[in-house]
Amino acid sequence: MDQWFRVMADPSFSVWERTALWGVLGTAILGLLYAVFLAAEMLRKDQGSEAMRKVSAAIRLGANAYLARQFRAILLLILVLTGLLYFTAGQQDIAIGRACAFLMGSIFSATVGFIGMNMAVQGNVRVAAASRTSFAEALTIAYRTGTITGMLTDGLGLLGGTLIFMVYGERAYEVLLGFGFGGTLLALFMRVGGGIYTKAADVGADLVGKLERNIPEDDPRNAATIADNVGDNVGDCAGMAADIFESYEVTIVSAMILGWASFGHKGVIFPLLVRAIGVVSSIIGTYLVRTSEEARAAMKAIHRGYAVSALVSIIGFCLMGFYYLRFPEAAALPTWVSFGLAGLDMRPVWTTLVGIALAVSINYLTDHFTAPEKPPVQFVARATQTGHATTIINGIAVGYESSVWAILVIAAAVFGSALIYQGTNPTYVAYGVAMCGIGMLTLTGNNISMDVFGPVADNANGIGEMAHLDPRARKTLSDLDACGNTTKAITKGIAIGSAVIAAVSLFNAYITDIAKFTGKTYSEIVPLLSISEPMVFIGFLIGGAIPFLFSSLTIRAVGRAAFLIVQEVRAQFQDKAIWEGRKTPDYARVVSICTNEAQRELIGPGLLAVLTPLLVGLLLHKEALGGFLAGIILSGQLLAVFMANAGGAWDNAKKFIEDGHYGGKGSDAHKASITGDTVGDPLKDTAGPALNPLIKVMNLVALLALPFIIQMEQRPWLAWAVGLVGLVILAIVIARSKQESPEILKWQAAIDRAS
Amino acid sequence: MDQWFRVMADPSFSVWERTALWGVLGTAILGLLYAVFLAAEMLRKDQGSEAMRKVSAAIRLGANAYLARQFRAILLLILVLTGLLYFTAGQQDIAIGRACAFLMGSIFSATVGFIGMNMAVQGNVRVAAASRTSFAEALTIAYRTGTITGMLTDGLGLLGGTLIFMVYGERAYEVLLGFGFGGTLLALFMRVGGGIYTKAADVGADLVGKLERNIPEDDPRNAATIADNVGDNVGDCAGMAADIFESYEVTIVSAMILGWASFGHKGVIFPLLVRAIGVVSSIIGTYLVRTSEEARAAMKAIHRGYAVSALVSIIGFCLMGFYYLRFPEAAALPTWVSFGLAGLDMRPVWTTLVGIALAVSINYLTDHFTAPEKPPVQFVARATQTGHATTIINGIAVGYESSVWAILVIAAAVFGSALIYQGTNPTYVAYGVAMCGIGMLTLTGNNISMDVFGPVADNANGIGEMAHLDPRARKTLSDLDACGNTTKAITKGIAIGSAVIAAVSLFNAYITDIAKFTGKTYSEIVPLLSISEPMVFIGFLIGGAIPFLFSSLTIRAVGRAAFLIVQEVRAQFQDKAIWEGRKTPDYARVVSICTNEAQRELIGPGLLAVLTPLLVGLLLHKEALGGFLAGIILSGQLLAVFMANAGGAWDNAKKFIEDGHYGGKGSDAHKASITGDTVGDPLKDTAGPALNPLIKVMNLVALLALPFIIQMEQRPWLAWAVGLVGLVILAIVIARSKQESPEILKWQAAIDRAS
Repeated sequence: MDQWFRVMADPSFSVWERTALWGVLGTAILGLLYAVFLAAEMLRKDQGSEAMRKVSAAIRLGANAYLARQFRAILLLILVLTGLLYFTAGQQDIAIGRACAFLMGSIFSATVGFIGMNMAVQGNVRVAAASRTSFAEALTIAYRTGTITGMLTDGLGLLGGTLIFMVYGERAYEVLLGFGFGGTLLALFMRVGGGIYTKAADVGADLVGKLERNIPEDDPRNAATIADNVGDNVGDCAGMAADIFESYEVTIVSAMILGWASFGHKGVIFPLLVRAIGVVSSIIGTYLVRTSEEARAAMKAIHRGYAVSALVSIIGFCLMGFYYLRFPEAAALPTWVSFGLAGLDMRPVWTTLVGIALAVSINYLTDHFTAPEKPPVQFVARATQTGHATTIINGIAVGYESSVWAILVIAAAVFGSALIYQGTNPTYVAYGVAMCGIGMLTLTGNNISMDVFGPVADNANGIGEMAHLDPRARKTLSDLDACGNTTKAITKGIAIGSAVIAAVSLFNAYITDIAKFTGKTYSEIVPLLSISEPMVFIGFLIGGAIPFLFSSLTIRAVGRAAFLIVQEVRAQFQDKAIWEGRKTPDYARVVSICTNEAQRELIGPGLLAVLTPLLVGLLLHKEALGGFLAGIILSGQLLAVFMANAGGAWDNAKKFIEDGHYGGKGSDAHKASITGDTVGDPLKDTAGPALNPLIKVMNLVALLALPFIIQMEQRPWLAWAVGLVGLVILAIVIARSKQESPEILKWQAAIDRAS
Repeated sequence: MDQWFRVMADPSFSVWERTALWGVLGTAILGLLYAVFLAAEMLRKDQGSEAMRKVSAAIRLGANAYLARQFRAILLLILVLTGLLYFTAGQQDIAIGRACAFLMGSIFSATVGFIGMNMAVQGNVRVAAASRTSFAEALTIAYRTGTITGMLTDGLGLLGGTLIFMVYGERAYEVLLGFGFGGTLLALFMRVGGGIYTKAADVGADLVGKLERNIPEDDPRNAATIADNVGDNVGDCAGMAADIFESYEVTIVSAMILGWASFGHKGVIFPLLVRAIGVVSSIIGTYLVRTSEEARAAMKAIHRGYAVSALVSIIGFCLMGFYYLRFPEAAALPTWVSFGLAGLDMRPVWTTLVGIALAVSINYLTDHFTAPEKPPVQFVARATQTGHATTIINGIAVGYESSVWAILVIAAAVFGSALIYQGTNPTYVAYGVAMCGIGMLTLTGNNISMDVFGPVADNANGIGEMAHLDPRARKTLSDLDACGNTTKAITKGIAIGSAVIAAVSLFNAYITDIAKFTGKTYSEIVPLLSISEPMVFIGFLIGGAIPFLFSSLTIRAVGRAAFLIVQEVRAQFQDKAIWEGRKTPDYARVVSICTNEAQRELIGPGLLAVLTPLLVGLLLHKEALGGFLAGIILSGQLLAVFMANAGGAWDNAKKFIEDGHYGGKGSDAHKASITGDTVGDPLKDTAGPALNPLIKVMNLVALLALPFIIQMEQRPWLAWAVGLVGLVILAIVIARSKQESPEILKWQAAIDRAS
């Protein structure tokens, strides 16, 4: 068997290292087995009454129809790209490996999304059923349903990275790029498509239901209710899982690239060991999430689980580092690094701890800016009294401010990692940043559990409403739903932060690669990427603009789709039988509109993400592309956090008012708060989250295309010609994706005739 | 007299050059005289009826009270800074010069704002009076009132720059920095204070008047009406004039700095000549703005004037370049530069033409994104039918998109300038960018005429409404008002674009200065500022965050102030006599609330602007400060354009509906459009415009503080101590400026008790 695994046949790896690698692989599989165990346990639970099963089945049907359609739609693209990737690598074995890894990455990413979502739609009805008898049981089911996806992410991410390393050894990096790109690209599609779907349905349902007709959320008469619940699953669950899976992959890819360049074996194996420790600590921590029937302390239990996992990880990292990170040949290191022991280098451990600190800080910040009882949300809630406009204005102010603190925290983490490696060479520093990313995503299992818990609880609450459960059960479900909103918001912060750290690592890899492919030294490359160079600055300006364009396109897409839903729901309400509850609305029609629109709208943003870095590289060269990547990271981060937190603040301001403040439900303040929530929806659930994969995709495309771009610099006319053709294609696609769909135009004409 | 003017005593300047400098000085004075002539002409016009004079007097009183208060408030700061600046320069004569130039710059900037505003409040009533008999006359008065400010800006800007150069010769640069900083700082205060004032009054007036009470804008029963009209003057007129004055100054400062370094005399004198040509062509172009009584073609006349000025300028630049830009000692230049003539270097001319093209492109873009009949506004207008939320969402999408195109156009201009100087050294390229800025601001006279025309027409319309003029006159005034909205929006684009170009030039000067003060060569500095350096990247992340923080603070400030206005207006409406029109509301009370709030709110954003670059420099060093400046330029530009154009689109979508579409006035669509307009107000008139001076102030502070920062790098502990103290002060000020004012808390408590 060893002949398949270069590493195993390589005598430079010690026996301990080989065993450790098998151990990591085993841990990855352990994570997957734990997921299977949890799934089996969950599926055995009671599914409740006939009515509940019916609602749940409708949601499951809609969700699967959507994903099936989505996978079909992108299958061709994936196959084409697999072919193209084959040609980006030089040697044949690497080429095959990269193409296969790309397929594997996208399949893993899709699997995480697909299974995660299916578990969520199985879990929701069981949570609703359990709520009739026990709060504790309902919480456990909901949380563990999330953990299934969490452990899948952990397990598959670690499995893929470790396997590729074991097979390709020191050349694993080139293959890993394909793995990362596959996962990232799929995540982008899941995020964009899912995001458009979920928010079109949500906005459409709310606008007509809550605002025009004054009926509660999830009222069965509202034709968009099922689509709304489906949306929670395809967006928050499948999209988010694929997104974090991707950050998980990308950070390991960049840590392995940079680790090999800086420390050889140990630089690569250590991050894998850290990840394995993370899997174990997530299993322990998530298993401990439970509460008593009396306490009903869901949030506390979840936080406790998180804290336990973090503690286990920290101890594990330190012990592992202490044992493994010995470099007897190293120069004398300062005491805070070596504890006075010859060659001990604890710096990789310290940087992972910076990463954990970063995760904790981001959690704190997100909580501060979006929790109902904290000043920012209070500030937005108060503004609802003076109307729609002031609600929006204050939310924008809160969102802007939150992005400032988030970026400062990230800057501090980069600073901390750089400080730990101060005085060493730049690759070490970059490795430090990558390890910070590894540390940050240690608790991915917990994070995803918390995230998926959100839509599961939300859906369970919806099922409870539609199946008319008793008030006690409804209270349990609504408490879990509120708790899920908070946990969902928190993981959003982590997803964005980790995307930025991952992108910064990739960016460092990009610089290292320029040196490699141009045959220059790193210090010769440094001046080329100076912001004093006009081309770098121009690239930087263009890069900064991309997240704005991308957001504009996705927001428009939601608006367009929502417009159609609004018209459809209004039309169905015209039917008296539906309005009076005597006839079931045509849920499937709304589901189908959402599915179609989400597919149609994928194309523009998707091509934008893949083509732009290529075009910048071809037309303005690699230096401009460097500036471009930096610009994207900066404005992408600012915009993503702004949109996530402004949206979260509006959402919770509405909840605060619904709890009876400032006139409570039905008051003018409530109406204003609904406007805020509705504005926030496409920002926080479509445009914002889609920026995470966007910045990673663009960095990966740049890395993959770099050799090609450098070759084309020798043939400037050809590069211009190819670039201009690409530009024209992109312009046409964007123009088309800005056009309104025929259905909208039809409706528009009808309205114009009527007025 | 020559002993005062180094340049005149310096034999290396040719007789022609000395004469030309006197000629430039003469042209500057000619511009000022033209302003005096226009003012005298305007003041002779009829002031209309008693009722009209009364309204106008109230506006004038409020506006002057505000400015007087504002100048008093910042007087101390200006004096302190004058003292500090004395110590930033090394030699005594330069130190005195810089301090004096700083005072002069701030006084000039204040003068432009003060006189411009006073002319506007004199002009508005005369426009209203003229509207009773003639459209053409009303247009001429309104436009020329704007031209007074325009020519003041041109004249004073050119006068200051030329005088300083003539006095200090090759050391003028160090003194000019003081001049630029004075103008910029004052503009920042005028922008922020004026912006808060104007929008608090506007939002407050609209929320209660239009939305709650369904009465038209400028209804005399609304207690906030006068404050609203005052606000148009202090914000759009005084603030904008000071802002553009500042860009005008800063571009000449950077062109002179970089010109001296690249081409000696000619590099400095040529931009002054270009400016002088601009003054003449603005006089010609603005004088030609007139229309016939039948045509009533205000917009066409204004555009024609602009085109004439542009044409005169282009011809003038080419002729002047052809005559003056001869460098017999230069190496053979390509034909497109030299036309085959020995030593002729037309590149500075070409870059000014790039600047004019940039101005025209930005005008086009702004018009496209904010004109009522164009697709973006239509897109927003259509969304009003589905409610408040979709109106906001679509406006955000339009705004995001517009910032993309704007930054691409700017990137193209930088690219064009760099291309013209391709293959030369980096200072040449930087000079090219600076000359592009000079070209862009050639038509400042026209731009400011167009801008001030906006508030004059707006106020005249308000006076017409409050003085119950006849329908014919009202139609004239309302047409002029609509036209003014467009011209105002267009100049906003130019103001932002020019701020970015000015900032890029200053940024280049910063890099040149690092080399100078560290005694290294330019190429040794380049690698220090590479984005591959962690500190540069960190600075860059922090810089990008600043515009978000700044916007958050200013938006909150407007919200807070507006909340107070809303409560005050509501309270006054409780008085039946006021509501039924039998009693004049207490306008002065609202004016005084606005004035107080605007002053209070200045402190946070002001300190943020001045302290942050200093702190970054002290704590993270000069390289991080370089990244910081780049980050600010990028995110400042994106955010400023987004806010300006989203606001413009919402504003005009509302106007479109008020013209009778989608149900017209009073319909639900109209209400949604008012929400959009109200959200847009603080974005487009407070936060957005204030970003222009912000990015320039920060670049200038960095330039001025650089020697100090470099010195402090030798004393790291002291630097950290000073930096941390500064950080604490900044944190306290920001925290305080986020707190709600005691009045709001009082109201809040009353509401809480009632509910």
